[in-house]
Amino acid sequence: MHKQLQQFVKAREEKLIAYRRDLHQYAEVAWSEFRTASLVADKLTALGYEVLTGDQVVDEAAMMGVPTAGQLEAEQQRALSQGANPAWVEKMRGGKTGVVGMMDFAQPGPTVAFRFDIDANDALEAETDKHRPWRDGFSSVNTGAMHACAHDGHTAIGLIFAELAAQFRDKLAGRIKIIFQPAEEGVRGAKAMVASGIVDDVDYLLGLHLGIGLKKSGTVTCNTEGFLATTKLDAVFNGVPAHAGAAPETGRNALLAAAAAALNLHAISRHSQGASRINVGVLNAGTGRNVIPPSAVLKLETRGTTTTINEYVYGEAVRILNAAAAMYGVTVDLAQMGGAAGCGNDPDLVARISAIAERSNLFEAVLPSGNIGGSEDCTYFMERVQKHGGKAAYLMVGTDLAAGHHDSYFDFDETVLAPATVLLGAILLDLTKKK
Amino acid sequence: MHKQLQQFVKAREEKLIAYRRDLHQYAEVAWSEFRTASLVADKLTALGYEVLTGDQVVDEAAMMGVPTAGQLEAEQQRALSQGANPAWVEKMRGGKTGVVGMMDFAQPGPTVAFRFDIDANDALEAETDKHRPWRDGFSSVNTGAMHACAHDGHTAIGLIFAELAAQFRDKLAGRIKIIFQPAEEGVRGAKAMVASGIVDDVDYLLGLHLGIGLKKSGTVTCNTEGFLATTKLDAVFNGVPAHAGAAPETGRNALLAAAAAALNLHAISRHSQGASRINVGVLNAGTGRNVIPPSAVLKLETRGTTTTINEYVYGEAVRILNAAAAMYGVTVDLAQMGGAAGCGNDPDLVARISAIAERSNLFEAVLPSGNIGGSEDCTYFMERVQKHGGKAAYLMVGTDLAAGHHDSYFDFDETVLAPATVLLGAILLDLTKKK
Amino acid sequence: MHKQLQQFVKAREEKLIAYRRDLHQYAEVAWSEFRTASLVADKLTALGYEVLTGDQVVDEAAMMGVPTAGQLEAEQQRALSQGANPAWVEKMRGGKTGVVGMMDFAQPGPTVAFRFDIDANDALEAETDKHRPWRDGFSSVNTGAMHACAHDGHTAIGLIFAELAAQFRDKLAGRIKIIFQPAEEGVRGAKAMVASGIVDDVDYLLGLHLGIGLKKSGTVTCNTEGFLATTKLDAVFNGVPAHAGAAPETGRNALLAAAAAALNLHAISRHSQGASRINVGVLNAGTGRNVIPPSAVLKLETRGTTTTINEYVYGEAVRILNAAAAMYGVTVDLAQMGGAAGCGNDPDLVARISAIAERSNLFEAVLPSGNIGGSEDCTYFMERVQKHGGKAAYLMVGTDLAAGHHDSYFDFDETVLAPATVLLGAILLDLTKKK
Amino acid sequence: MHKQLQQFVKAREEKLIAYRRDLHQYAEVAWSEFRTASLVADKLTALGYEVLTGDQVVDEAAMMGVPTAGQLEAEQQRALSQGANPAWVEKMRGGKTGVVGMMDFAQPGPTVAFRFDIDANDALEAETDKHRPWRDGFSSVNTGAMHACAHDGHTAIGLIFAELAAQFRDKLAGRIKIIFQPAEEGVRGAKAMVASGIVDDVDYLLGLHLGIGLKKSGTVTCNTEGFLATTKLDAVFNGVPAHAGAAPETGRNALLAAAAAALNLHAISRHSQGASRINVGVLNAGTGRNVIPPSAVLKLETRGTTTTINEYVYGEAVRILNAAAAMYGVTVDLAQMGGAAGCGNDPDLVARISAIAERSNLFEAVLPSGNIGGSEDCTYFMERVQKHGGKAAYLMVGTDLAAGHHDSYFDFDETVLAPATVLLGAILLDLTKKK
Repeated sequence: MHKQLQQFVKAREEKLIAYRRDLHQYAEVAWSEFRTASLVADKLTALGYEVLTGDQVVDEAAMMGVPTAGQLEAEQQRALSQGANPAWVEKMRGGKTGVVGMMDFAQPGPTVAFRFDIDANDALEAETDKHRPWRDGFSSVNTGAMHACAHDGHTAIGLIFAELAAQFRDKLAGRIKIIFQPAEEGVRGAKAMVASGIVDDVDYLLGLHLGIGLKKSGTVTCNTEGFLATTKLDAVFNGVPAHAGAAPETGRNALLAAAAAALNLHAISRHSQGASRINVGVLNAGTGRNVIPPSAVLKLETRGTTTTINEYVYGEAVRILNAAAAMYGVTVDLAQMGGAAGCGNDPDLVARISAIAERSNLFEAVLPSGNIGGSEDCTYFMERVQKHGGKAAYLMVGTDLAAGHHDSYFDFDETVLAPATVLLGAILLDLTKKK
Repeated sequence: MHKQLQQFVKAREEKLIAYRRDLHQYAEVAWSEFRTASLVADKLTALGYEVLTGDQVVDEAAMMGVPTAGQLEAEQQRALSQGANPAWVEKMRGGKTGVVGMMDFAQPGPTVAFRFDIDANDALEAETDKHRPWRDGFSSVNTGAMHACAHDGHTAIGLIFAELAAQFRDKLAGRIKIIFQPAEEGVRGAKAMVASGIVDDVDYLLGLHLGIGLKKSGTVTCNTEGFLATTKLDAVFNGVPAHAGAAPETGRNALLAAAAAALNLHAISRHSQGASRINVGVLNAGTGRNVIPPSAVLKLETRGTTTTINEYVYGEAVRILNAAAAMYGVTVDLAQMGGAAGCGNDPDLVARISAIAERSNLFEAVLPSGNIGGSEDCTYFMERVQKHGGKAAYLMVGTDLAAGHHDSYFDFDETVLAPATVLLGAILLDLTKKK
Repeated sequence: MHKQLQQFVKAREEKLIAYRRDLHQYAEVAWSEFRTASLVADKLTALGYEVLTGDQVVDEAAMMGVPTAGQLEAEQQRALSQGANPAWVEKMRGGKTGVVGMMDFAQPGPTVAFRFDIDANDALEAETDKHRPWRDGFSSVNTGAMHACAHDGHTAIGLIFAELAAQFRDKLAGRIKIIFQPAEEGVRGAKAMVASGIVDDVDYLLGLHLGIGLKKSGTVTCNTEGFLATTKLDAVFNGVPAHAGAAPETGRNALLAAAAAALNLHAISRHSQGASRINVGVLNAGTGRNVIPPSAVLKLETRGTTTTINEYVYGEAVRILNAAAAMYGVTVDLAQMGGAAGCGNDPDLVARISAIAERSNLFEAVLPSGNIGGSEDCTYFMERVQKHGGKAAYLMVGTDLAAGHHDSYFDFDETVLAPATVLLGAILLDLTKKK
Repeated sequence: MHKQLQQFVKAREEKLIAYRRDLHQYAEVAWSEFRTASLVADKLTALGYEVLTGDQVVDEAAMMGVPTAGQLEAEQQRALSQGANPAWVEKMRGGKTGVVGMMDFAQPGPTVAFRFDIDANDALEAETDKHRPWRDGFSSVNTGAMHACAHDGHTAIGLIFAELAAQFRDKLAGRIKIIFQPAEEGVRGAKAMVASGIVDDVDYLLGLHLGIGLKKSGTVTCNTEGFLATTKLDAVFNGVPAHAGAAPETGRNALLAAAAAALNLHAISRHSQGASRINVGVLNAGTGRNVIPPSAVLKLETRGTTTTINEYVYGEAVRILNAAAAMYGVTVDLAQMGGAAGCGNDPDLVARISAIAERSNLFEAVLPSGNIGGSEDCTYFMERVQKHGGKAAYLMVGTDLAAGHHDSYFDFDETVLAPATVLLGAILLDLTKKK
């Protein structure tokens, strides 16, 4: 059957690349992927999937780092003008741009889920001939949005994979859920999809990324490691302005509260059970040189090699932020802007799909592990599935790169898209083959 | 002769108010007073003064807080379009908008100087009928520039006073210098005019302000107190960015350097010899949540009731800023953005001109002192004159106010302009009358 | 009658000096003045005064900075061995070593109070021939206790003054209270005596100091200024120890809490209404290099030129200390260890007694004011009397000095004791003379 | 031959334990092990070793954390009174209490070194019947010194092992160096012995510890892991005192410099290549509540899982300490008080000696690894040997414990001493057997 899979995908490789380039051209950032999600929803519908979106798959209360209503409105208009289906956009109102395609196979069996992220980066795409997307005319038309982390590739793979699964449905047992997740950048989107309950019944969940740790085409690993649990946090301090010369004691100094917070946050103790991180990346405070600063904003993040360590650092951070406010008699409002769990792959699932990858002859090298070296909120899906007794693993498909991830010259090798799709197909068949 | 003075000014009161309103309408901020200064230079020339401007009266090396070349270019174009004399504007290139009118009297005698400040505030003027300048059609046409500190009134007084001095020149002995100073807001302009040497030969120097400590028309004091010496300082920290998750130790954290600086700056010891102030009014640092912050900017100011105390605080601040940079392995660039001396009036000059004010019957009350409660860089002129053996005093002329200084509804009582001008005339005659 | 006063004191000048030297030799520090107070109580009793001590004049709940029970017990034994009267010592148990001598005069009239402080400094007295007390054999026999602030002189004056008041009682109207206050050093004693209510009925209260601002014999002022209100505070932080290598995250770091407190305390804003001070004088924290520090102690003080300003600084300090503890998840206990009010003399009382001083011809110069430049808890008495409608003033009697106050070579000119006593007598007669 | 080894040691087990108890009773802390070292030197001499001590094996310039001359003098006297050999003590003057026994075997061959640490802890030994050393009468007679880390056991093993090596010398090839190191507590001693060059010619070096990671008798590992590289550092800040009320600006505040240092030290960035630690364990500053603090002492340590990481943290710390001093205009003196390298065992040597341990049947379990979870300056010896091309490994011999290491009730199971000695013997024979 593997041969069939390969032929099926081979026949659609041009379409696969075309999808990728279309998505690249109409790059959309977190919670604003109205056109992308609408396109996905249309394709899934056409393929016979039950399509869930909006409130069905995104829990509004758990959304983090959502743009303002005005920004969302503008993005919806932009998406509509770029061909989004108004019916889907209406359902996705409020930025709930997650889409899940669900299909029952020929027999009862396990529920398997595949997750693809769909959002672009907040980045200005390079506009020089050195950059292939520009040279070949498919660079982003949406200024400030750029697919610099290969999510366009992920989404394209997801769409062809959806065709494949539909094609082979009669040979399979169980149920498939193909998850298209918004807002992975800033690790903001998974939590809200997980909170909707969409993976509570899942037995096997697979995630995938192009590149990152594997920077060579022809490589793959089914055992991606190094996920750092993380929490993204904004802290807004509010004090009282006063003339710094005439009546300084009547002010309440938000800048000093923020400065004290920053220093003491970085002094959070190391954790003996693994690596941790704290970073105050941005501090903006004050209104004028001669005014006691009435306001300050901190943008920070905590990380840990496990969810427990991250929660330790996060708990310390919250206490310190509140105390820093109390120290200067100001108030502080905290808002979680993103997050990801620390997570591990299930070793036996890894072993099983690694064997598939080995047998497939799709790759020159199937590596025992690869390091993502950062945070990815797919871990929220994996953690939930594992909590409910399911198994999860995260694949990394190597690719040559024109420039590193998040770079304005980022571009990957499109020839890796097809084998990645075939591999997913092979895994699907293995996990759900009829007895 | 006092009667003559009063009649001379009375006859020009309409013109005095017209000047004020014209200047108000074409408000120009620090170092951009091309139209105002050009108008002053034209009037002084017409009256027979020797007129100095540009490099002659502004030492470029001592200018602080100068706009960028691009901004100055734009302001020059704006001023030209609003009637500025191109010949003067050319001379004032680079923002050197100080103007001095010099005239020798009938006999040798003392050199007396009168200083008027001419710049507007960085402020949006109210545009409602509640605000007289708007109602009467003379509110600022230059958005973002507003005369909210009465410098329009000061300049208008200076122009009519220049007429008066020219008119009475045959009766007087010595030399007069009428100084029109740019960039008093932010206390940026006096230092550069003083550095040009323009007051090195001055025996008597008088400064004046409307309102501030005296908020009632009909009052005056010749003994303005409470000048705080001050220095305005920008500190720019430069570090090295790094990924906060993947390689934090390779970064150099400018945000923490700035935060440490801010806290420790505020911990500078009180001074036993008088009041001091330190304020970090603005701190902006960092580029993104997950990046070790490579840059930070602090805007701060020091103050003291004497120049010595301010210099103590400033010296401490410089040491702390440099040490904070060293602490985090980053660099820091410091730039003085403004400054004023702490200063005292000469008691015998105060007594002499207070007596003149009393005798003049121009005011309901001549108060023994008034408090400016802040910083004014006229003190640089006063200090220099006193160092060279001359005497200086600073007058405050009370006025009813529509709203406080620097408020977008600021407006004063124009009936106080004429008596203020007469008083300056009387002082001039007293100091320079022929023997 | 002035002549009589002078003769009365002149006849006792040797005794006056002998008292001073005896008290100097048996110097006793705060709350341990058992021998001094017992001697005072005996003398007052012999002179016919009603004598109050212990709980009658010291409110235990308001005592600050009291030694431990063991230390007090040892001091009592020491005092008894040096001649203290056991009956008084028993009454003074717990360190309540305040003594008040009360006497009603021949007629009803005002209640006047004179306050003298009696305690020595925690200091090692010089033991070289350069130092007169050592040379003449009256230096302290109590190691670690030394009269280095002239309180021995104050007490001696108080004793002879008590004789004088008793001698003249038939000529006077009203009531006298002669207050001997312990624990002025560290400003710990006045608050507890005031809290006992002992001056609630006082119409006039006078305090006195030798030297400080007036360092020349023959000078005096009735208008001592520059009292700084102050609060002395100890903060004890308690955290949790942990091995700094093996499990740092399980500790709670009291050292960092204390360090953060210290820095942020010093950053308390200046006050626009007058001078303020904050000083963390001592910080001791931690148990070992490789242990997360479980404990820390801060010793600090706040000051202000007025009680309001001191209370502002103190209030800020308390908030910061609590927040610093919260920041590091540790506890903090705060204990007030001393305090004094900021205070002003009543101008009309100053005028009245200055005139007496002028008329007396006891001094070469009666100065309009003198600066104490520090904190003195006599201000608590003054403040209470003023709150109840009475009047208060604080005299400073100049004296040549061998070395500055609190120096181990401190010694003053004993010839100033007699005129100081006469002046107090003259003031008493003026305030209470029979109609 | 293994049988012979066992019999040899078995016959000396009582002596082995007697040595341990004698050393326990005369516990001596770092650099003061005059009696212990003298006893070792005597025994080695008697056995025919060439004995090196004092300057021969301790480089004075590299000694860290040395007691004062007065303390050393007192310790020497104490040791002499407890039976130390005056000739050795004279050689060890200045605390150079390292001893090396050197012996050449029957044939040329490899140089093998065994290192034992000999010093006690700064601790008060429990004096209750619950504590066997007390109950059995061999608890420390030197108050404040206690063998609470089993170095008494290590030294006793070393002495019997020296007998064994001498006994078997004819059967062996090469040279042996038995190193008795002082001052392991505080990781102060190894560096100075290494600096003397004593292990520069060593081909194999073995270290050993009882307990720590293996808390069960009958266990052993030849692969001790988890060594943290560390540096111990004292920082002494010197400023200028001043009266905090009267002239605070004339002081130079060492307490605030130390507090700023402490906070910013703890904010040193995490390192991406492994775990790091920083701890300011002690901060003592200031002289009195109302004095600007003129002095402060910090005791701190840095750690890292590799020498590189520790050096990173240490380098940051030095920069921060210097900058903190500069920030407050004070001076700082830094002194290294101890240190250890991060280190790894040579895998093939581990394999070789693990096999010996397995074959020996001395232990119930030979574990693949054990964690020391801290710092041990034996790593300096290991690192040096490895740098010169030799191999090193560190054994841990499990033991039941009465209480944890460094506890005042610490005691171990003396039955583990004999098998540990046999194992070392077996290793020696394996490494140096004649061809």
